[in-house]
Amino acid sequence: MTGVRLIEVRKEILGDNTRLAGATREELRKKKTMLLNLMSSPGSGKTSLIMRTIEGLKGSVNLGVIEADIDSVIDAEKVSTTGTPVVQLRTGGFCHLDATMVNEGIEALGEKNLDLIIIENIGNLVCPAEFDTGAHKNVMILSVPEGDDKPLKYPLMFSVCDLLLINKMDYLSLSDFDPGALRKKVMNLNPGMVVVEISCKTGLGIEVWINWVKTEIASFKNEL
Amino acid sequence: MTGVRLIEVRKEILGDNTRLAGATREELRKKKTMLLNLMSSPGSGKTSLIMRTIEGLKGSVNLGVIEADIDSVIDAEKVSTTGTPVVQLRTGGFCHLDATMVNEGIEALGEKNLDLIIIENIGNLVCPAEFDTGAHKNVMILSVPEGDDKPLKYPLMFSVCDLLLINKMDYLSLSDFDPGALRKKVMNLNPGMVVVEISCKTGLGIEVWINWVKTEIASFKNEL
Repeated sequence: MTGVRLIEVRKEILGDNTRLAGATREELRKKKTMLLNLMSSPGSGKTSLIMRTIEGLKGSVNLGVIEADIDSVIDAEKVSTTGTPVVQLRTGGFCHLDATMVNEGIEALGEKNLDLIIIENIGNLVCPAEFDTGAHKNVMILSVPEGDDKPLKYPLMFSVCDLLLINKMDYLSLSDFDPGALRKKVMNLNPGMVVVEISCKTGLGIEVWINWVKTEIASFKNEL
Repeated sequence: MTGVRLIEVRKEILGDNTRLAGATREELRKKKTMLLNLMSSPGSGKTSLIMRTIEGLKGSVNLGVIEADIDSVIDAEKVSTTGTPVVQLRTGGFCHLDATMVNEGIEALGEKNLDLIIIENIGNLVCPAEFDTGAHKNVMILSVPEGDDKPLKYPLMFSVCDLLLINKMDYLSLSDFDPGALRKKVMNLNPGMVVVEISCKTGLGIEVWINWVKTEIASFKNEL
């Protein structure tokens, strides 16, 4: 294998993927369904955030969830206990979702007049940032125990997202994580990024997050 | 893009990589240099562990370090303050190290009669598990805040490693992480795996880890 060959394959795949993602985005726009792609490291709290979001949007937003996992169905089982429509994509060895996989998830959810579909991407700060899923909004979680140096190490992820949730703020007292230093690093990469400090465990900041989602859905529907 | 085409490309790449990794492993064996590949999620404590390891092996083991990062050099700068030979591989968009990249790292370290080279792989629980680097030993870190469900979600990583370090045990009191439940899940996947509970912050378990490394080096040298 030469590095060059691999890069060429990758470019071709990425080009095809971007075209398909654009078509998905446009089709969902016509259906007035906003697609939100949630990304983070393993164990940062994606599923916990989705559970909080289902609770917070109950009665006001028709929500569907696409869960992705390499090999298990435990997240989808957790979400399905709430009665929310959910599908599980098992990705095998793949470390990210692409537009084809997301399309399959959307089809599997079926026609349900959804206002919002949340994709829980594979736990990974690298490849998911490179593959356009067709989402209208990209959101990432960074949790306090991961450290405030992550924008330097995974700059693309911090650049492609519209909103950053700093989760597990309840760990802050045990950690040398500096939220101010993190914000500075984030602003250097992506000055338009919204940053919200939360704790899925204590509920801190969840209302701010829920209001952001509601505002974005309203703005998305008015755009049409 | 069809899923099938991507899979075929992947297989071809993996086959070439495995052959090259085998050759690296054999060559290092002749030189009596043990190669140890360290993997984890972002922010689990790989660099902190390497700093503890440098301290613990000082005076008894000739050590070199290969750092990998997508875009930054901060880990290599930290390691180089100790006087330990270190090279930084910048991988661009790649989410894992392959045998070619590791070979470049070994060449860049040069001929230094090293007993041990530690590779700090890209922070990712998916792809690094699929690509043989040529290492004689694979070690992973899982940190307490990531949760004890991770073997169900990233089974390959837990299957290919010889030793699991459970880091950030100092967070245990704030967490619902259950070390006993984790061990059961790990043993189902990989009954031969050694599991050591550590804290790079407090020093808990570091002596056990250092002794494991020393024993493995001694056994590796006797094998020749």
